[in-house]
Amino acid sequence: MKTSIATVTISGELPEKLEAIARAGFDGVEIFENDFLAFDGSPADVGKLVRDHGLEITLFQPFRDFEGMPEPLRSRTFDRAERKFDVMQQLGTDLVLVCSNISPAAIGGIDRAAEDFRELGERAARRGLRVGYEALAWGRHISDHRDAWEIVRRADHPNVGLILDSFHTLSRKIDVNSIRSIPKEKIFIVQLADAPLIDMDLLYWSRHFRNMPGEGELPVTAFTEAVAATGYDGYFSLEIFNDQFRGGLSRPIAADGHRSLIYLGDQVRRHLGTGSMTGAAMPERAAVQGVGFVEFATDEQDEVELVALLRTLGFRQTAVHRTKKVSLFEQGEIRILVNVDQAGFANAAYAVHGTFAYAMALVVDDAAKAYARALALDAEPFAQPVAEGELELPAIRGVGGGIVYLIDDKSALGRFSEIDFRPVTDDTDTASAGLIRVDHVAQTVGYDEMLTWLLFYTSIFETHKTPMVDIIDPAGVVRSQVVENQSGALRITMNGAENRRTLAGHFIAEKFGSGIQHLAFSTDDIFATAEKLRSCGFRSLHISPNYYDDVEARFGLDPVMTERLKAENILYDRDEHGEYFQLYSGTYGEGFFFEIVERRGYRGYGAPNAIFRIAALKRQMRPEGIPKDVD
Amino acid sequence: MKTSIATVTISGELPEKLEAIARAGFDGVEIFENDFLAFDGSPADVGKLVRDHGLEITLFQPFRDFEGMPEPLRSRTFDRAERKFDVMQQLGTDLVLVCSNISPAAIGGIDRAAEDFRELGERAARRGLRVGYEALAWGRHISDHRDAWEIVRRADHPNVGLILDSFHTLSRKIDVNSIRSIPKEKIFIVQLADAPLIDMDLLYWSRHFRNMPGEGELPVTAFTEAVAATGYDGYFSLEIFNDQFRGGLSRPIAADGHRSLIYLGDQVRRHLGTGSMTGAAMPERAAVQGVGFVEFATDEQDEVELVALLRTLGFRQTAVHRTKKVSLFEQGEIRILVNVDQAGFANAAYAVHGTFAYAMALVVDDAAKAYARALALDAEPFAQPVAEGELELPAIRGVGGGIVYLIDDKSALGRFSEIDFRPVTDDTDTASAGLIRVDHVAQTVGYDEMLTWLLFYTSIFETHKTPMVDIIDPAGVVRSQVVENQSGALRITMNGAENRRTLAGHFIAEKFGSGIQHLAFSTDDIFATAEKLRSCGFRSLHISPNYYDDVEARFGLDPVMTERLKAENILYDRDEHGEYFQLYSGTYGEGFFFEIVERRGYRGYGAPNAIFRIAALKRQMRPEGIPKDVD
Repeated sequence: MKTSIATVTISGELPEKLEAIARAGFDGVEIFENDFLAFDGSPADVGKLVRDHGLEITLFQPFRDFEGMPEPLRSRTFDRAERKFDVMQQLGTDLVLVCSNISPAAIGGIDRAAEDFRELGERAARRGLRVGYEALAWGRHISDHRDAWEIVRRADHPNVGLILDSFHTLSRKIDVNSIRSIPKEKIFIVQLADAPLIDMDLLYWSRHFRNMPGEGELPVTAFTEAVAATGYDGYFSLEIFNDQFRGGLSRPIAADGHRSLIYLGDQVRRHLGTGSMTGAAMPERAAVQGVGFVEFATDEQDEVELVALLRTLGFRQTAVHRTKKVSLFEQGEIRILVNVDQAGFANAAYAVHGTFAYAMALVVDDAAKAYARALALDAEPFAQPVAEGELELPAIRGVGGGIVYLIDDKSALGRFSEIDFRPVTDDTDTASAGLIRVDHVAQTVGYDEMLTWLLFYTSIFETHKTPMVDIIDPAGVVRSQVVENQSGALRITMNGAENRRTLAGHFIAEKFGSGIQHLAFSTDDIFATAEKLRSCGFRSLHISPNYYDDVEARFGLDPVMTERLKAENILYDRDEHGEYFQLYSGTYGEGFFFEIVERRGYRGYGAPNAIFRIAALKRQMRPEGIPKDVD
Repeated sequence: MKTSIATVTISGELPEKLEAIARAGFDGVEIFENDFLAFDGSPADVGKLVRDHGLEITLFQPFRDFEGMPEPLRSRTFDRAERKFDVMQQLGTDLVLVCSNISPAAIGGIDRAAEDFRELGERAARRGLRVGYEALAWGRHISDHRDAWEIVRRADHPNVGLILDSFHTLSRKIDVNSIRSIPKEKIFIVQLADAPLIDMDLLYWSRHFRNMPGEGELPVTAFTEAVAATGYDGYFSLEIFNDQFRGGLSRPIAADGHRSLIYLGDQVRRHLGTGSMTGAAMPERAAVQGVGFVEFATDEQDEVELVALLRTLGFRQTAVHRTKKVSLFEQGEIRILVNVDQAGFANAAYAVHGTFAYAMALVVDDAAKAYARALALDAEPFAQPVAEGELELPAIRGVGGGIVYLIDDKSALGRFSEIDFRPVTDDTDTASAGLIRVDHVAQTVGYDEMLTWLLFYTSIFETHKTPMVDIIDPAGVVRSQVVENQSGALRITMNGAENRRTLAGHFIAEKFGSGIQHLAFSTDDIFATAEKLRSCGFRSLHISPNYYDDVEARFGLDPVMTERLKAENILYDRDEHGEYFQLYSGTYGEGFFFEIVERRGYRGYGAPNAIFRIAALKRQMRPEGIPKDVD
């Protein structure tokens, strides 16, 4: 797949944009005219800058309000086009995008438009240039690629072709199969954009909400398959207007764009088989069987408190690392590593962030394949020296620069705890609280990073994402979205915070970055677990009694059940599949906490309860905690 | 007008919300149920907290999915209602909001719903409570207040009434005059919300985009007039779901809400005359005749550079203050004060912000009346000691805590420059550059402050605002909106920045607050002015030659004209009314700059040129200026 991106998609001035685009691995770039006009250098300078980055200019765009104009506007429009042709020749690009006319002066008429394009094609041909016509979804007379194609067909000129854009086609719900009958050589370039499904004015939606393929909810894959079916082997180019991207950092946004295209190409290749779309083949998305371990970075002083907390949760120490100062704690299938080693990445991470869950291992079917796929999708590999005879776990950088290890049961990796660790006997009287496995890992990120990490997980692992939910923190709205797989073996909740007075935002601000803010463990019997935890000295998060009155009324609970919930500070929810019970710890450090859940068929994450536990967590953190909302 | 606000409208936990609401001057508060449930205190505690703040609980809300349910859901719904009645009695409020059912289980049927409400009314009556029914715009069967009213009419129970909400009525474009035939005693409470006019899914729009009356574009005044015409004399209550408000600071948001209601009451009173709606009468909105002066705070060292800059713009010193270290510079009708006094507010402002335009004077018809109106609308008065015999200019705090003086020509205030100042002779060779008056004042604010200041200006002064425009800074989108009056004597452009890498965001971050970022002066002959400025040593902002090639093609300009524009770095725009010419200085300090404009009938502000001058300003600020967009 030949990849391209429009300069308008990312932030910065032209040189920074080009640098970020080249670094992300794109083959080409669309020059958005305003970026060029604002740049204080000649068209030839821009062309050289692009080529010095090893990029090709795939398109110059947009040329507006061209076809179907009455005189004298028509003549002036052609004059204007000739000026742009001058610029294109100096830039060193042969293709210009003409988008369908939105001017109130436009007359319309398929044949009039075709005639205009034939003449423009003639003029372009004289200079060795080409003209691509795109139907804007809000074009005055032409707003459907099928009509644009009819105009191109009637223009019947080798230098006039069609430009397809997934947003314009999909936002109007036009059947993508109508693309399959277009001759591939008449498709001059294909632009791609996705968007969340929100019913609103097309122009407003387009200008503010577009995002990368796979980041939204439009059927961009089906669109691309239809294009690929024509045999089209040209550029796929991202043209995305998004306020967040415009205000974000250019490099990560460009990197997301490149990943989105690689992933899209991979999906299309799997459907259509090898052919024009084939990028480098890569293993399929990795099926995840569970969370192998979660590793905390800390130091010997902080370790005392962390380990004490783990013991109140019923974790017992089972092993120590053979060469590093790392302890293994276990309960049910849950494994927690506590790393206080003075060398290595964990120590460096601790120095910056303090005690935190900086790494997790995902158990996949085949770690080597999962790792290969991750690297093919631009994931950053992670490695650090290991001692002779120890395992080197394949790993990539994840949220907040933390580590995602990849292990499996088919190789020696699955026995890392036997190979790298030696067993010890826990001489405390800690007893299991009945915790079975990691139910979900909750990662908190800046709101503007959410799309990045959702794409990361869904492109590398066999997962899907659920719709975004608004979580109401007293200090603001936190966006929450879940990545999970069919079996429930992998569940990651992602919370995106915008302001630092929220619990999530405070965590990011105080820890200097995104990361795991809480771990939820499952039990088969929440009440038995609650009792055991109490006997271990665990202190559950106090929930307001008002909550229980409402829960009883809302769900029609037996008052005896309500009293049990209230006595143990257990939150309750129910969906069409069953019941859900949630028990929280208080916060540790700058907002990290544990959750224990019991699912009786329930498939969600207790979103309706979030406002209550957030308020409770914030109360518990005071007065040293989050500053109150006063000016 | 009896004012109320729902707790959901502002951020914070319940005690902070109540504190902010009381401080803003509201009479009552709606308790949004989740705020109560998350609070760790009994309903009686909440009731006491509210009353200790001198507030009344006007409403408990919402009670959802009530009417038209089949059994056994129907019985459970009534049980649920009884539980809420318990809470209401403990809270000490008699009114609950029942919003129209959105459950898929709801059967519908006007008479079934009326029957349900009659029974609920009976149950409520036994406890001395009342039930208000509100049609949600997205209700399953009832989504129109006229249908809700028919149900209330047929329920025919004194304890059952209607709740009107401007958003639900206006978002569906329901004729507000249908309200005029409802008996006032059947309207139990009226909720108000405005919203920007964006065509989108009603629920999404409602949940994220509502704002205070007068901050949006819905005809809330017409709605309120229809309500007032019934003789309704109960509470008008703000119920506003807005992500920005939820994430903002509680006090300023509550203050905006109170101002919006006072202003709305004033507008309605003017249309309907005195009556139930009458709040305290206040003078009408102040007509502005122009900007009387702009005052810079600086110190004696920085003054040198500032005055040098003013001289390159053709300003001559004409007077000095009799007792303070303040100099007056004039050109045409423009007056600039340069304040280096060691005492007073200007000095304190300088200490925090460095040199900046911290104050401006608006010339109004009657300064005393304008001042009275401003105070009636909760503006913060400003005063500082003046020497014997000197004028005390009425003043209020404006954007960023800066000062807005109010002067007029009918009182001594208009002669402040004669009374407080003594003339001096400027012995430099500075010659006028032909600048005539202040064309517009550009204020930069945090994006979340924009609504505050738009409401400030439009409620106090006879102005209107223009639609919001997106200004593309290379580092992000800046929202721009204009407040202006019919004559053009007052024009304020307001730029709202979200990130500090934009020119606007950098200005706010580096100056520690919002304020005047640029001043635009008008000339009758931009080319003559440009030439004079050059001879004064003024250095205009260099604009990319690419811009001129495009402008020539876009507007079909005579190449001779294009060359003149290019030679002088003048930007060009055109609208249906005429032409516009813009010439910029470089930046001074952390991003302050001057603009010179010539309007030949043109009514806008050159928004299409903003991207080019921002890129140029940012280039000129480097390398010491705004950090580049790299990670």
